[in-house]
This record gives sequence, C-alpha cells and structure tokens, in this order.
Amino acid sequence: MPQLRLALAQLDVTVGDLDANADKIVSWTRGAVDRGAHVVAFPELVLTGYPVEDLALRGSFVDASQSKVQTLARRLADEGLGDVVVVCGYLDRAAGTAMGVDRLGRPKGSPTNSAAVIHQGRVVTSAVKHHLPNYGVFDEFRHFVPGNTLQVIRIHGIDVALVICEDLWQDGGPVAVTRAAGAGLLLVVNSSPYEANKDDVRGELVARRAREAGCALAYVNLVGGQDELVFDGDSLIADAEGNVFARAPQFEQGSMLVDLDLPAATAIPVAEHEGIEIVHTVLHEEPLPAYEPLQPAIAPRLSDEAEMYGAVVLGLRDYVRKNGFKSVLLGLSGGIDSSLVAAIACDAVGPENVFGISNPSIYSSDHSRDDAAELAARTGLNYRVIPIQPMVQPFLETLGLNGLAEENLQARVRAVIWMGLSNADGHLVLACGNKSELSVGYSTIYGDSVGGFAPLKDVPKTVVWRLAKWRNADAVAKGQQPPIPENAIAKPPSAELRPGQVDTDSLPPYDLLDDMLDDYVEQDRGSAELVAAGFEPELVSKVVQLVDKAEYKRRQYPPGPKITHKAFGRDRRLPITNAWREDARKAADN
Amino acid sequence: MPQLRLALAQLDVTVGDLDANADKIVSWTRGAVDRGAHVVAFPELVLTGYPVEDLALRGSFVDASQSKVQTLARRLADEGLGDVVVVCGYLDRAAGTAMGVDRLGRPKGSPTNSAAVIHQGRVVTSAVKHHLPNYGVFDEFRHFVPGNTLQVIRIHGIDVALVICEDLWQDGGPVAVTRAAGAGLLLVVNSSPYEANKDDVRGELVARRAREAGCALAYVNLVGGQDELVFDGDSLIADAEGNVFARAPQFEQGSMLVDLDLPAATAIPVAEHEGIEIVHTVLHEEPLPAYEPLQPAIAPRLSDEAEMYGAVVLGLRDYVRKNGFKSVLLGLSGGIDSSLVAAIACDAVGPENVFGISNPSIYSSDHSRDDAAELAARTGLNYRVIPIQPMVQPFLETLGLNGLAEENLQARVRAVIWMGLSNADGHLVLACGNKSELSVGYSTIYGDSVGGFAPLKDVPKTVVWRLAKWRNADAVAKGQQPPIPENAIAKPPSAELRPGQVDTDSLPPYDLLDDMLDDYVEQDRGSAELVAAGFEPELVSKVVQLVDKAEYKRRQYPPGPKITHKAFGRDRRLPITNAWREDARKAADN
Repeated sequence: MPQLRLALAQLDVTVGDLDANADKIVSWTRGAVDRGAHVVAFPELVLTGYPVEDLALRGSFVDASQSKVQTLARRLADEGLGDVVVVCGYLDRAAGTAMGVDRLGRPKGSPTNSAAVIHQGRVVTSAVKHHLPNYGVFDEFRHFVPGNTLQVIRIHGIDVALVICEDLWQDGGPVAVTRAAGAGLLLVVNSSPYEANKDDVRGELVARRAREAGCALAYVNLVGGQDELVFDGDSLIADAEGNVFARAPQFEQGSMLVDLDLPAATAIPVAEHEGIEIVHTVLHEEPLPAYEPLQPAIAPRLSDEAEMYGAVVLGLRDYVRKNGFKSVLLGLSGGIDSSLVAAIACDAVGPENVFGISNPSIYSSDHSRDDAAELAARTGLNYRVIPIQPMVQPFLETLGLNGLAEENLQARVRAVIWMGLSNADGHLVLACGNKSELSVGYSTIYGDSVGGFAPLKDVPKTVVWRLAKWRNADAVAKGQQPPIPENAIAKPPSAELRPGQVDTDSLPPYDLLDDMLDDYVEQDRGSAELVAAGFEPELVSKVVQLVDKAEYKRRQYPPGPKITHKAFGRDRRLPITNAWREDARKAADN
Repeated sequence: MPQLRLALAQLDVTVGDLDANADKIVSWTRGAVDRGAHVVAFPELVLTGYPVEDLALRGSFVDASQSKVQTLARRLADEGLGDVVVVCGYLDRAAGTAMGVDRLGRPKGSPTNSAAVIHQGRVVTSAVKHHLPNYGVFDEFRHFVPGNTLQVIRIHGIDVALVICEDLWQDGGPVAVTRAAGAGLLLVVNSSPYEANKDDVRGELVARRAREAGCALAYVNLVGGQDELVFDGDSLIADAEGNVFARAPQFEQGSMLVDLDLPAATAIPVAEHEGIEIVHTVLHEEPLPAYEPLQPAIAPRLSDEAEMYGAVVLGLRDYVRKNGFKSVLLGLSGGIDSSLVAAIACDAVGPENVFGISNPSIYSSDHSRDDAAELAARTGLNYRVIPIQPMVQPFLETLGLNGLAEENLQARVRAVIWMGLSNADGHLVLACGNKSELSVGYSTIYGDSVGGFAPLKDVPKTVVWRLAKWRNADAVAKGQQPPIPENAIAKPPSAELRPGQVDTDSLPPYDLLDDMLDDYVEQDRGSAELVAAGFEPELVSKVVQLVDKAEYKRRQYPPGPKITHKAFGRDRRLPITNAWREDARKAADN
C-alpha cells in the first residue's frame, strides 16, 4: 500500500500574534521535513491562535490572517519547504462576501474557521469548518459562518480528507461522507480545550469515527494556555479498525511523526453526498517509492492528578509569558490553597520569579507563619513578611468597623499591599481561591480575590488536597524535596480573619460540599434532585442559595485554567440579577 | 370591519422571579380587562424575565416555567379573567424532547423561547421563536432551539399572527408568510434592549414589516434594567400602510390600549408556505358587536439626552432594587463623572438613599472639595468627608511606594473605605468611570473601579458633559435647582492623584479621543481606516494600543447599562491574552 510520513505538530501559539505564529509554523515545518515528513499538520486556527473571540469580527484582523497565510505559503517555498504538504488553520472569509455585505444574524464579514492546504508556494485549497460548536466554552455561531464541503486532497497517491475539530464530534456533515468519498486517511485539525478525563473521551471518539469512515484517522490538537482555556495536545492516530497506535504527550509542544500504510486512491471521485459537496484536489497521483517506516510511539497516560496539575502549571506559565509578565506575587497564608499555588507557580515560572508575601494579622496563628516560612524555604521562592496591623488600625479608628466589615478589611489591606508591590515591581498577582470557595462566595471581593490569574479557580477544595499530596509524593518519588509543608495539608482550613475561625463555622465539610457542588454546578441538577440524591433539604437550601448569591463575586474573580466540566465564566453564564430560587424544602415534600 | 381592543402591557419584571412575574401578569391583565381589552399582550419571556442566560439549561428552571404558565392560565380563569386572550412569553421545551435526550450541539433539554396564548383557563397554543439572535448582546443559539411555525389565532373574527422579537428583524421565517397566511394583525412580542436611537430604527422596521405583511402590526416590548441591559418599552402599533398611530413611552412600565378595525378572517387557511408551517387556532369565529373606539395616543419622543439619561436612571434603579439593595454609596471627587452619577443616583433611588463620600488627599484641590460639598447641598444626598492621608501614610512608610504605585494607592485606599462602609451599612457601591476612560484603561483596578454597578460604563466622556448640561437645563426648565455645580462641568478633568495632574497629560482631548474610539470600538475599524479618516498615525497607534491593553481592566469593571451600539462586555468580547497589534504607521505607508 502507498506510504506517507505524517507529522502532527501540536504547537503552543499566542492569539493574535500572526508574525510569531507564522515563524513557528515555518520552523516546525523545517524540523519535520528534516525528519522526512511528507505532510505536516498544524492545529485549528494555529495562525491566529484559538479562540479569537470577537477579533473574528474585525475586518482588519481577517484581512491580516488571509494575507499572512498567502505570505506563509510563499515563504515556505522560498525557504526550500515547498515540496511538503502543510495543513494550517487560519481565519478566512466566506467566498463572495466582503465587509460591505453584512447580513443581520450572520457574523460581520462572514469569517470562516478554515484550514489551508499549502503546497509549492500556494494555498491549493482550504477546508471550512462545518459544525460550529456553540455550547460550553464555545461561541462559534457568533464568530463564524459554516462551510458545507469535504476537502479531499490526493497526496502521493492517497486521498486525504480534511476536517476541523467539531466536525468530528457531531454526527452528519463532512465526516459522515468520508467513506463515500473513498478517503484513505481522515485528517482532523483541532483546538480542543482540556477538561479532566477528556483524553479518554477523545480516544474513544477517534476510534469510533475511524471505524465509521472506514479509514485511518489522524488527530492533531493545540497545546498551551489562553486565558481560561488550556489546550493539552494529546494528538493521536487510529487505524481503520479504530486501534489507536500513536499518541503524543499532553501539555507539551512537539511534533509526532508517524508512518502510515494507506489504501491507494480510487480513480473516480464522488462530487456530492448527503448534501455535502466533495471537492477533490490532486497534488500527486503516484505513490512514493517504498521506504523503511518509523516505529510509532504511544506516550504514557498521566494519572488524573498529574494531568490536572499539568494543566494548571501550563495555564499559569502561558498566561504569565503571553501577557508579558516575568514574575508572580502571591500572599502566603500558610494554608493549603496558597501553598499549592506557590508550588504550581514555582513549577511554572521558577522559584526565582515567585514572590511570596506573608501578611500576618493579630489573628494569624503561629503555625500559619511557620508553614509559610517553611514553604518558602523548601521551594526557594522570594519571601517577605509584612504584618498588616499598622495599616489596618487607621481604617478601624476612622471608620469604626467591626464584624464582617473588619474581617474583610484585613483581606483588603493585604490586597492593597500586593497591588502596590505589583505596581512597583511588575509582578503578576495571583489569587489563591479554589472552586469550592468561589462556588459559595467564601472570599472577600477586592481582598483575597485580587490579581490577574487564579490557578485554582476551577479546582474544588478536595482536589486541592489531592494535588498537594500528589505533588509532594511525586517529588519524593523523584528524590526531591516535597514543596508543601505536611502541616499545611493536614490542618483544618481557616481564613484566620477572627480568633479561632475555621471554614466549617460557615460551611459544611468540604467532602460533603464538593459532592453537592458537583450535582448543582457541574451537573446542573435542581434542588429536588439533590434532595432525592440524599442530601439534607436544609443544607441543600443553604448551599444552593450561597451559590446563586455569589454570581457577582465570581464575575469579578480573575480568570483561571479550566479543569472541570463546568468552569465558572466560560461554561456557566448566569445573570447577576436573578431571583430564581429553588426551594429544597418544597422539593422534599414532592 | 371587525373591532378589537388590544392592550400592550410593557412590564418591568425580574429574571427568575416566576411568582412575582406571574402576579404582575394577573394584575395587569385585570387592569386591562377593567378598561375593556379583548387581548392583552405581554413581552417576550415575561414570565421568566429576559435574558435568562444559562438558566435555560437548568431542567428545574424550564420545568418551573412550564408549570407556572399552566398555573397562570388556570388562575386567570379562576379570577374571572378567562374571557380575555392573554399572550405571555415563557420558557418551554421543544415537543418530544426531555432532559434525557440531549444531542451534542443542541442546547441541553431543548429549551424554546415561546409565547403562550391563554384563553378560558388553558394554554390554547404556543408560538416558538424562529430566528434566534446570536450577535451583539444575544446568545440565543446557546440557549434555545428554534421553532418553524407561524401561529395564527382567530380572535373575534380576526386572524392574529403571533411572532417573537428577532422574527421581525430578519428576512424570511414566519413574518415572511404572514401575508400568505391571510392574517389581519401581526402581533410581535419583544424583549429588545435599549440602544441610543434604536427607537427610530424600530419604528421604521415596524412600518416596513406592516407593509410587507399587508396588515396592522402591534409591537410590545419589555421595560426595565437587567444587569447590563435596559429595556425601554416604546411599544407601538402601525396600520397596514406602515403608519405608526400609537406609541407608548420609553422607560415606563404601563399598558397601552388601542382599538383596531381589522379585516375579517378569510375562510380557508393555508397550512404551509415557504417551509413554514402555519398553525390555525380558532377562539371566536364571530366579530364583536360594534362599539365606540378609544382614541390612540402617541407618546412624545424624547431628546437624545433625555433618552440616554432615562436609560441610565432606570438601569441603576432596577439594579439596586432587583438585587435587594436600598441605598447606594459613591466617592464624590468634585469632578464631572461622580457629580453626574450622584445626580443620576438621586433621580434613581432618591437623595435620602444616596451616600456621597469625599476622600480628599494631599493632592486634592480646594475646588474639588467645594464642588463636592456644593453638589451634596444642591441634591440633598448624605455627605461625609473622610481624608485619606492617615490611611495612605502607613502603606507609604511600609512599602516605600512612589510614582504610579503611589497614585494607585490613593485610589485603592478610597476603595477600601467605600467597601468597608458598604459592608457595615449595606450600601451598593457605585463606580463612576466613563466609557472613554475605560476604553483606554484610565482607571485604577481595585481603586475607583470597585463597586457593584457603573452607571457611566457605556457613556463616553463627551456625552457625560452633554448629559450633565441637559440634566441641569431640564431642572431649570422645570423651575428646580440644577443638581450639578457649574464649575464641575466647566473645569478641566483631573484624577488629582499627583500635583497639577490633568487628564490631557496622558490622553488626547476628549472630543478627539471619543471620535477615535467611535471608529475603533463602536465601528470596529482598523488602524488603516483611522489613518485614512485623517487621524494622526502616532496618535492612532497610541490609542489603539491603550484600548487593546485595557481588556483585563474592563473585564474587572462592574456592569453598567448599555447605551451605545457596542457596550464593553456584552457586545465586545475579546481575549485578554491577545498579541494582535495593528500598526498605524505601516497603515499610513500603504
């Protein structure tokens, strides 16, 4: 059977940085060609970065992408890379449209989510995404018009069908006609965001679609952090029977080269099937001379904890770097959340670029100060102690605050200190709250919630402990010092804003709370379903009300990497003004 | 011709408050019936409020809406209101679907944006929105599945076609088959958000569609504030020639009764046209006995300034009330922004519920303190002076801040004071920044940007002055005290964070800046187009870079009422991590 050496290049690019992204595409193409690749496939919208959001509606941005993909094609040929077939996602505009002919309800300028096929200095054809996802983190009906064709490119005697991301996930559309088109390989370019355990779902999907299409399937995915999204790579290839025989690592930029034996293209192309136009482009009719294939590799799967930790580290590292920061600053309370964030930050940007500030108050315990100092010593981050009482006192004297107002005041004075140091020295401030706290509004707005990024925003408290334990155990396994003091993991959580305070004064135990939040937030179940699941009605009422009331606080919280199925902000978009109240007690009576 | 007395009830409801919204519908139905109405039409999704956002994806919420519309139908009959025909927007679920049969890419549970026709204690039929807007402030592809029918209801011998909001705006769909269906009246129920001058567009649209449909057209719209959106009412009726002969006021809850003479229904209904199913429901074959009609009224149009001011006042009043606050607090600098916000707040919630805090620093001018005190005296709001130096000093001594960090510190100390008073006394804090400042990031994050609502968030600085002058002139015209000190309007704007500072140290004059922002932000034009329009390339580069860099600050800003075509947040959704740079100098060379 004809052979083909395919490179799946899972790159980490930056949204909007067309020049740098094009440079990367050229450099990774050269690397793949040096290793003998015949086709190099890059992810969905790799040239612009993903997601572009409303940049898609700016005419100047679409123009720049269109022009850049043409320049890229010429440059690849100029640099001696014209023979290889390059597949490169970019932003295009639907044929026959211009900025002047906008139609109500259709995205301005009719942008398309496209993938160019580049060969011998030209864009020889272009696939247009057919299924536009518009749920969860996706808003593609807002940004793109759909295509309605399947592109099939004959490369060295093999018919390669090309589709984009969601086209693989949904029934119908171009993937459904791949078999009728007689393709020997289905190539799917993706920018598919990370979510815990999604790699399993993806592997199964790829296997199933390969069987349906009756041909091998190659899947290349983006890598890197982009605001709340983390792309995990995990590119993979299955044979026509659905056996995954090559798989790239998660969270690492790289290029996976795989040799494929594929059926020779048939002579007569089908022009249309089930409403999808099939467009054939012939680059080479003849197969390559036989050559010795490479052995495919399957990257080892990560544990659940390693995967989540990797996502948070990459999300933070890329947010810092891509936004032009060099260092981060965080408040170190000695508690588990800030300890874990500190460990993550040290892994993301190096301890020399992490600044931990301990801000003890008159309510802070000795163990808090000790644990913070111990963490700093273990990790080697930059550590500074600034007691807050001298700054808290004048506010208390002037305003006469007490109770909750006094508690919040302490958190806000800390925030003013962090932001002052950030302004003076250019650090990005990290917020250390976790998803469980955020769910129920257990944080001080403009206090512990200030900052540019919140690594644990989508990590429930019970998972915070799991990740801390995993990180320490992983260090031990590697013969390194575990970064997080054991006492920070073991002690009961407390905000320490008044004497003797612990979180369970106001909240149920976190294992119970996280169970309820999984039902209410992740699964969108109602009070009645929570009660039916065995949770106590009074507690359901309390938790549901806390979650509903905290929407404004969550909106003000910095972005953080998406880890779970339903991250606040992108996945779960609720009104602030919202009088909807589910009555758990009524539900219990039904 | 047969007669009909139609009530268009433009209500102010609260998202999620099904019980209270249903009570309102009953009470306004009774009021309309007392005045002889035969049909009472309420706005789109009046039962749930609009927009419901991801509440549409919660099964328990859709269940509650479905159940509530049935209860409402029975209750209307029980309360002696069964004879009148009530049209009531509510959230439904597409026929044949349940929460268990979700399909990828289709909103979970298949919710529909529906309008029930209620008569004699029953929901006799239901229209489903066909065109789902998914641009600007709208995300309806995320939340609803579309309908594909035109409902025609025979009421007292007249065929009334019923459609929902966007169905009127876009070509094709049910409105396009109204003429073929032989309707005598096209009734459109809406939740159409306010935008400056949209009332003119709406009036023209209604006139054009009436002519296309060849019948009278009645348009009823929601009233009230919902987070960033303000609904302005402006319900209206045109005859078959497109003459608008009745129009309700903007920004006022109320019910407009109009008597119509309409063509008698024809005998043979059409069942389908251009792919749209036409569903006929007969309530009464026979026309009513002739009666003496009411004279229609056309509410006087508001000036541009009166309209914008009205939108901001209503947006603020409803945000305060619907979120359970009773009072507001704001920092009074003596400048034009906080002076205008204070005047708006006094109009929205009454001066007795407005708390103005003057926080002079060592850099504050005498005129600032005087102007703030003068404003307080003129409006009667609660006024308190708290100098910030005693609180600023300990931070400066401890942290050794200077330059921008010291400027920001002052703004943040003020914010800590406001939030402390808010926590202690329950006031909603108002942020006073305007759209021009926000565009270019001229504000201190966690400083002047704190608060729950930002009335001027979508008001450009040049419009701030126009509104201030208008408000004062309006007071004079009514023989009242103008609320805003003339000096606050006349003096050059300054943040007063360092000696002698004025805004034009860092920014171009506001009339020039607002012109550029109109091109770059409102119209989405690129650098090249701004240069072509005559703006100086260096200045274009500077402004475009400031706008692009300020995205994070804008995301952290509190919500504010949408006034312009492109409000930050809902209309303009851009990535934070975004390396896209338009080069104005390169553009100038092209």
